[in-house]
Amino acid sequence: MDVAIPIFDRITALDAVGPYEVLSRVPDAQVRFIAAEPGPKRTENRMLALHADAALSELTEPDVIVFPGGYGTRALTDDETVLAWLRHAHEHSRWTTSVCTGSLVLGAAGILEGLEATSHWLSLDDLARYGATPVSRRVVRQGKVITAAGVTSGIDMALMLAAEIAGDEIAQAIQLGIEYDPEPPFDSGSIATAAPEIVQIVKDRRARLA
Amino acid sequence: MDVAIPIFDRITALDAVGPYEVLSRVPDAQVRFIAAEPGPKRTENRMLALHADAALSELTEPDVIVFPGGYGTRALTDDETVLAWLRHAHEHSRWTTSVCTGSLVLGAAGILEGLEATSHWLSLDDLARYGATPVSRRVVRQGKVITAAGVTSGIDMALMLAAEIAGDEIAQAIQLGIEYDPEPPFDSGSIATAAPEIVQIVKDRRARLA
Repeated sequence: MDVAIPIFDRITALDAVGPYEVLSRVPDAQVRFIAAEPGPKRTENRMLALHADAALSELTEPDVIVFPGGYGTRALTDDETVLAWLRHAHEHSRWTTSVCTGSLVLGAAGILEGLEATSHWLSLDDLARYGATPVSRRVVRQGKVITAAGVTSGIDMALMLAAEIAGDEIAQAIQLGIEYDPEPPFDSGSIATAAPEIVQIVKDRRARLA
Repeated sequence: MDVAIPIFDRITALDAVGPYEVLSRVPDAQVRFIAAEPGPKRTENRMLALHADAALSELTEPDVIVFPGGYGTRALTDDETVLAWLRHAHEHSRWTTSVCTGSLVLGAAGILEGLEATSHWLSLDDLARYGATPVSRRVVRQGKVITAAGVTSGIDMALMLAAEIAGDEIAQAIQLGIEYDPEPPFDSGSIATAAPEIVQIVKDRRARLA
């Protein structure tokens, strides 16, 4: 089973690496990091580079697509190379998924038209411009299309996907293998629970980065 | 504030990328991926390369050390270049931390002598050979030394550390920024909750990889 994770400059690394860490443990899965041009792709803060080992054109019909997010997705929503790859890959995929603002790229490719979908909470409303219905849930499944919310939600999405692909036992073993028994020190991981001043700090940070 | 994440061949990517994603958002933090020799470092399954941008010798006194795990740590427990770097860095650090089997490298450097510490549950008992007391908790703090359990626990550890460094508000904003409101689809993330047959699947997988 081929799992394609397209990466790009200004990616959010954990969006990609969370699902990679889960799906690479599915028996017979081969996860491949690919890009329009192979080579190192820097995160939005420039502090880390993930390596794209192959070109999009070398893996046009993966079984599973995981499209990660990050500030770099803004440029991709106009990038015909990426959008054409995505449209073709989606026609042939068993699963087409995204994490965080990766859903905006799925949207720009026309994949979310008429579907419910999610994204990072700061970008959720932007899904509407692609004909999707924004839904504030951590993981939203619509047939073979699964969108996940911000960054860490990709881990939950991938575990759900691992269960669909390989069964509950394997997914549970993967969860135990990565010791995913979360104990966040605070209860501020969603806008439903975070205090208003905390929400404002994150909005201000985004405004500075944008 | 310099945060050093030493990487190496056969690393578990999420051990490094989880804490990176949190700590890179601490104001004024500069996270640097370093290695004995700079360049791409492949994960244990060969499916992903993270790029080490500098040599260990270029960052000898970081404020924070985060030592990730993976099968590659076995070789590092005998690697005098890495152990000497770690001993010197630890003498000057504000915080010395590890994720997963990264704690075995801290142990081999003599840093855990007489301390409680944790590691991936499959390797927890190995800590005793370095004079540490193995403790089955997700995050174990002993003064400036913090060890975290398997893979995903690095996210919880880093949020706790972000709060120590920058205060609770900043840590909560980081948690919201990465939308860390976990919803694992199963309750099998620790050996305390996973079924015995699930534990066996993970042990068998490790035996095959070793």
